[in-house]
Amino acid sequence: MAQAPIVGMVGAGQLARMTAQAAVSLDVRMRILAGPDEVPVTPAGVEVARGATTPAELIAFGRTCDVVTFDHEGVAAASVAAVEAEGIAVRPAGRTLALAVDKSEQRWRLAEAGFPVPTFAVAEDRSAVADFVERHGPAVVVKAATGGYDGRGVWFVEGADEAVAVLERCGRVVLEPVLDLDRELAVIVARRPGGEAVVYPVVETVQRAGICREVLAPARVDPAIAAEAAEVARGIAEHLDATGLLAVELFVVDGAVLVNELAARPHNSGHLTIEGAVTSQFENHLRAVLDWPLGPTDLRAPAVAMANVITESSDDDLHARLPDALALGPVHVHLYGKSPRPGRKVGHVTVLADDLDVAADLARRAADVLIGRDAP
Amino acid sequence: MAQAPIVGMVGAGQLARMTAQAAVSLDVRMRILAGPDEVPVTPAGVEVARGATTPAELIAFGRTCDVVTFDHEGVAAASVAAVEAEGIAVRPAGRTLALAVDKSEQRWRLAEAGFPVPTFAVAEDRSAVADFVERHGPAVVVKAATGGYDGRGVWFVEGADEAVAVLERCGRVVLEPVLDLDRELAVIVARRPGGEAVVYPVVETVQRAGICREVLAPARVDPAIAAEAAEVARGIAEHLDATGLLAVELFVVDGAVLVNELAARPHNSGHLTIEGAVTSQFENHLRAVLDWPLGPTDLRAPAVAMANVITESSDDDLHARLPDALALGPVHVHLYGKSPRPGRKVGHVTVLADDLDVAADLARRAADVLIGRDAP
Repeated sequence: MAQAPIVGMVGAGQLARMTAQAAVSLDVRMRILAGPDEVPVTPAGVEVARGATTPAELIAFGRTCDVVTFDHEGVAAASVAAVEAEGIAVRPAGRTLALAVDKSEQRWRLAEAGFPVPTFAVAEDRSAVADFVERHGPAVVVKAATGGYDGRGVWFVEGADEAVAVLERCGRVVLEPVLDLDRELAVIVARRPGGEAVVYPVVETVQRAGICREVLAPARVDPAIAAEAAEVARGIAEHLDATGLLAVELFVVDGAVLVNELAARPHNSGHLTIEGAVTSQFENHLRAVLDWPLGPTDLRAPAVAMANVITESSDDDLHARLPDALALGPVHVHLYGKSPRPGRKVGHVTVLADDLDVAADLARRAADVLIGRDAP
Repeated sequence: MAQAPIVGMVGAGQLARMTAQAAVSLDVRMRILAGPDEVPVTPAGVEVARGATTPAELIAFGRTCDVVTFDHEGVAAASVAAVEAEGIAVRPAGRTLALAVDKSEQRWRLAEAGFPVPTFAVAEDRSAVADFVERHGPAVVVKAATGGYDGRGVWFVEGADEAVAVLERCGRVVLEPVLDLDRELAVIVARRPGGEAVVYPVVETVQRAGICREVLAPARVDPAIAAEAAEVARGIAEHLDATGLLAVELFVVDGAVLVNELAARPHNSGHLTIEGAVTSQFENHLRAVLDWPLGPTDLRAPAVAMANVITESSDDDLHARLPDALALGPVHVHLYGKSPRPGRKVGHVTVLADDLDVAADLARRAADVLIGRDAP
């Protein structure tokens, strides 16, 4: 019998964990590359190699796999390029990863190709910052060009001095006006090397303090806006010749969609697809990077909601509270095996229902119970 | 933070594999006890201990777990009793396991308690066999009282000589008339130590050559029959004070249900609950043995069908054919990582649809493609 294919994934966080869980069904072997100091949260015993992502170490890892993919984007471009140069399949490709990592490059490329993006400037010096604040401020949004993740690396500032202070910390920044958002949306596209692609239903993301707290499907927007968001996402995946998953985050402003940013990996906005869609994002990620036919992305229920479980204290005892959360009803609880600390995403809860408010309310209550916010 | 609970499971087959997959979501640690010669098919690296199931070895294993459960029933009663005597939680209890293992005991207990069972006799000598064949033959069904599994241990014979030949091989047998079955059904009950129980929708099992080939949900029977089957199953679980999962296989004969046999573990008839029910049998098994609130068992679609993937040759190359199977549409393929050999169950395919014939047809086609029976 042919051997089970081996998918190597760089990073051992919850995305790797949930991908490994999905891999069991298809008898795909997962091999994880955890950083030297990373605490892997992959299921007990998924094969975990240890190593930094230097070119040599990444090549050595890649040689043990049929294809290499990523649970995060924090891998040096030179290392990825070195692996590709060895003829090892890397999906997404290094050029896609590089774009996902660099918000300034992203904006330029997308704007250049005619995709709708917010008004922006990329600034590397004080005068460019001051100029943008002059034209669009005094309140502006300043984003670190690289290294941002999950609300980190984004600052809402007032005036040129504050904006320049961010520049001095980050070296290069993307500047945006403060937009009056109707909604925030996300769309996940799965795409094979040959171009076959499937698009997940457009979801709505609800952020608090820059962190995604809830995801609602379908998004509560006009069908024309949802269709436009899906089309833009599909178009970007094609334009970039992306392979694997591409998550596109969008703003809705004055009834029009604008691309906020990209991620080239499974995405928090797609966790609800585990139970909520015919094929989960994790299974379709595996199928896409292995160049296998992709699965349908339809929702399994009229309404699907997900709430992130974000601990408030390192004393939070999720295991002790789990039975109370399960007692609430049809909740799908996912705990990532991470130690709690303030502001850390340690799990999520998904609920399928006929009504979005009902689903969101139950998901939120279960997430609250898990962090001890509410007696059931 | 409290530690993740540890569920120990004796046996490393596909039931352990799928239970371990479900355990990831709830951050439950699984520890598997594989027999000395068993090839574990649990996901790479689930903690696998090696050992026979002698009392001493089973106690040593049990001491490392919060609760011990089983992927099969082939564990000596004395070993299970020894573990229980140590005060280690064992779910299902030894008495339930013992009953699941012994078809003669099962029949007596169920008949005694007034549950509907087929006409039967338990025979340990030739004259008892001859007497039964005289009254109900010449064609009768002879079942080994113990050791039967998945169609093995059941013989359809013609006349007393053939029946006696089986007796001489098996030592003790259960005899039944050849029944004219309208349908075969199965019902899975999940039950906590305190008595909270949930019942899965009644499914129909389709056997060929004594092996379950397909499972259809909901069963194509009169609602009154389905309700009776569910009631009987719930009643048996309660009567036996079962904990964990109890699967009850039933015959429908002349519009009435008769209990065929019991299994005290996750069951092939429940594999379709992974995608097809709100809570999978594997998650509810974990929740039941951990004494946690149980999840809803409702079907996720009007029709759910499952087809087993049963290899016909040791050359069958499932991995090579998987992409063709995935290309067929909304199929959920599960491969167990087992080497193919003739007649071996190596996976299953589940399909959700609006119509049962559509679901069953697609599941069957995908299973056929996987074993190379049919070009897609």
